[in-house]
Amino acid sequence: MSSEGMGPSAVRDANDVAAWDAEADVVVVGLGCAGACAAIEAAEAGAQVLVLERAGGGGGTSAMSGGLIYMGGGTPVQQACGIEDTPEQMFTFLMAACGPEPDESKIRVFCEESVAHFHWLEGHGVPFKRTFYPEPFMEPPTDDCLVFSGGEDAYPWDRVTPPVPRAHKPRHPGAAGGFLMQCLVAATERSGARTLTGGLCETLVVDDSGAVVGVAMREGGHEQAVRARRGVVLTAGSFIQNREMVMRHSPLLWRCSYKLGVEGDDGRAIRMAMGAGADVIRMDAGEVAIPLTPPRRLMRGILVTAQGQRFINEDAYYGRVGQECLFRHDGRMYLIVDNAVYERNQAGFEATYVEESIADLERSLGMASGVLQSTVGLYNRHAAEGVDPLFHKNAKYLQPLVESPFAAIDCGTDKVLWASFTLGGLHTRPSGEVLTPDDRVVPGLYAAGRTTSGVAAYGYASGVSLADGTFFGRRAGRSAASAHGRFVG
Amino acid sequence: MSSEGMGPSAVRDANDVAAWDAEADVVVVGLGCAGACAAIEAAEAGAQVLVLERAGGGGGTSAMSGGLIYMGGGTPVQQACGIEDTPEQMFTFLMAACGPEPDESKIRVFCEESVAHFHWLEGHGVPFKRTFYPEPFMEPPTDDCLVFSGGEDAYPWDRVTPPVPRAHKPRHPGAAGGFLMQCLVAATERSGARTLTGGLCETLVVDDSGAVVGVAMREGGHEQAVRARRGVVLTAGSFIQNREMVMRHSPLLWRCSYKLGVEGDDGRAIRMAMGAGADVIRMDAGEVAIPLTPPRRLMRGILVTAQGQRFINEDAYYGRVGQECLFRHDGRMYLIVDNAVYERNQAGFEATYVEESIADLERSLGMASGVLQSTVGLYNRHAAEGVDPLFHKNAKYLQPLVESPFAAIDCGTDKVLWASFTLGGLHTRPSGEVLTPDDRVVPGLYAAGRTTSGVAAYGYASGVSLADGTFFGRRAGRSAASAHGRFVG
Repeated sequence: MSSEGMGPSAVRDANDVAAWDAEADVVVVGLGCAGACAAIEAAEAGAQVLVLERAGGGGGTSAMSGGLIYMGGGTPVQQACGIEDTPEQMFTFLMAACGPEPDESKIRVFCEESVAHFHWLEGHGVPFKRTFYPEPFMEPPTDDCLVFSGGEDAYPWDRVTPPVPRAHKPRHPGAAGGFLMQCLVAATERSGARTLTGGLCETLVVDDSGAVVGVAMREGGHEQAVRARRGVVLTAGSFIQNREMVMRHSPLLWRCSYKLGVEGDDGRAIRMAMGAGADVIRMDAGEVAIPLTPPRRLMRGILVTAQGQRFINEDAYYGRVGQECLFRHDGRMYLIVDNAVYERNQAGFEATYVEESIADLERSLGMASGVLQSTVGLYNRHAAEGVDPLFHKNAKYLQPLVESPFAAIDCGTDKVLWASFTLGGLHTRPSGEVLTPDDRVVPGLYAAGRTTSGVAAYGYASGVSLADGTFFGRRAGRSAASAHGRFVG
Repeated sequence: MSSEGMGPSAVRDANDVAAWDAEADVVVVGLGCAGACAAIEAAEAGAQVLVLERAGGGGGTSAMSGGLIYMGGGTPVQQACGIEDTPEQMFTFLMAACGPEPDESKIRVFCEESVAHFHWLEGHGVPFKRTFYPEPFMEPPTDDCLVFSGGEDAYPWDRVTPPVPRAHKPRHPGAAGGFLMQCLVAATERSGARTLTGGLCETLVVDDSGAVVGVAMREGGHEQAVRARRGVVLTAGSFIQNREMVMRHSPLLWRCSYKLGVEGDDGRAIRMAMGAGADVIRMDAGEVAIPLTPPRRLMRGILVTAQGQRFINEDAYYGRVGQECLFRHDGRMYLIVDNAVYERNQAGFEATYVEESIADLERSLGMASGVLQSTVGLYNRHAAEGVDPLFHKNAKYLQPLVESPFAAIDCGTDKVLWASFTLGGLHTRPSGEVLTPDDRVVPGLYAAGRTTSGVAAYGYASGVSLADGTFFGRRAGRSAASAHGRFVG
């Protein structure tokens, strides 16, 4: 059966491969953070490794990112900064923040081995400064390391476990994803893994037993068959750039103005794996970030829906604000501030209306008479008492909104920057083995990173993708390297 | 390759079938409304049809239902009741109410051929009285026919297209799903289709070209291979009874106390199809009904979240109320009424708290001081003016809540009856052909009903499942019957 031109889910029959054009023990598809770590581990385990990257060079979406890596349980950086953390605390936080119903087996091992993972990264040339930076959520503009990145110090997670920052940025000023990938690509080269760029993996090659034994790729107009003696590892990113897939699984995600991912985040590897029998899970899940902060000061304003009601504690992680607003309020909200609270948003959000009174603002916003006044009145009454019994914003951000003029910043998906990427994908074991809808392993197939559903089932914290990509990428690489060759060509 | 014991997604290789134990042109898996209609159409098209039903008899979840069938565009019942409808109006309504991003190609043909479908059902022995019944959403307790079933006369749909009732109940007192299935099973028998009950379809049989050529089934301890010369039609219900699948695709749905479906709604057919290369879409979508009404009178109360805020027009379709509450407010809400509005709920919902004032009620509910008072105060102020500028409840249900005592009915998922079933499933064409993740047809495979993602992408109206099950079941049966035999045994 020829599958040419039939799409990635039409797998190639190994019997139809006349000759292999290349081979390796382990073939890794995609050279982002997960692919690099898979390649390094597989090579260090003694496997001959070939990495296939469709772009002109390694990096992928990881290289576009801020570079935050979610690690904890007592890393050297946490210790140097006097921050006490344990794997149990980290586990408790992630089980709560990444739900509902996150994958406990993944989160368990992710937390237990997080400190070891930190050392592994440093050992492979990713440096981290021993410093904490107080502004949350995003990467520090400096080369500082540790930040709060998931609302650990805000409601409701501050009630669940002691608030601890866990996002670690490699030692590089500002966004450090590119630097991280420079380090990891260099480590990949040092490991002995070979990399081939510019060729597109078209589909998987599957033998009569259903085992994945290679990939069919196209390079410079020529189709090539690449044999994987031990296994294929799919680490090819999310499907956020595939409009049809997003529309079929999570249409609201498409409303976000910025789809965070390289062009190759088109779900091709997910469809390749489905053709070999893989299941997909939580395909509706998505990270949705809206950079209301920095500055933190704006958390003293209130966020209201199109109706004029509050819906969340404004000091929540901005990814949580984004998810709640998009999935629960259709991506429409306003940030309401007074003159005392207002400060220029770093992402450039501008005041849409400025009025002398809340009543005027309410009218300008076309809200029902009395709603915003009632919302602000109630908030102010409670804020004056230092409490927010509705949504439990931290007392340090509570300040009655009373100083004229008042402003509303329209933060709707159609007005300001919203960044999204998909969190659903292949169902894998913590080992990286890919599962069928009946929880059988697809022999010879492994995956990690945003091609899979990982630590973040639905909820999210910044740094989780690079963390579970590198962490489970390593495990997938090790698993593939240790697999017995199933194919005798 | 033997797939025994490996789960439904491990398809059987046709080369391993030593002999076929039975055969037919078209094999239909599951005898609910979709399977019956597929079988009838296939048989009437001249195909030899075999229906396989795992239970002891036909009926499935369709037989447990109220029997409402969503049809319109000017049916004889609508005409007899003086209700003007057109296929365009029906199309406009469904495109709005079943979104976001529903399948336009399905909704188009579903509306254009709805009147013809009504005649087909009557012609096959399903009678409909020419009457309208004014209480909405559920099946009439009488043998009356037509009801509003999707909030057509409530915000926001009343702004979209003229409000028209379209749910048709077969002429039978009360819940008519069992009666409907009696009629359809009898018609299936008359059509010449054979039915085999009590055997479980284990997996699909697939030939070297990837075409589905039969099913492997287990009956009385024996495995049997059943050849389908033209096609297999999967009409085996939803996956609402499969806890693991629900947890992986739509965990909140599991919170509903009543999973509406027979035991066989375990997603087995979906997994069978995935093994043959099929894609699944919108697996998070679910219908969530909470029978706040009847009586309609209770719509004069207000629904508030756990925080004490209103979130919807209370006269909305109760499936919409359920979805909004479950997916957007974690399945927690209270119905607040005063003495003038209160009336016994027919589903038996009881007042949780009864207090002399709203302030007392707020305290009893553990809500933040002032929120419920503010919500009720604002609602009353607007209701006195005959408007609901927040959520646009129809003026006829607007009545200030002022007569003591006041009551709160806790309508949380853990307190009262919530019924749910899944709406996601196989990706099919309007023809019933099953598609791969790359939109290729899986040769020989067809599907309809809740095994597929149908007319209701996310939103819903009562009667849509029996309607799209019967409608697209017919098309799948016709498609299968007209397919060229692909397998030469």
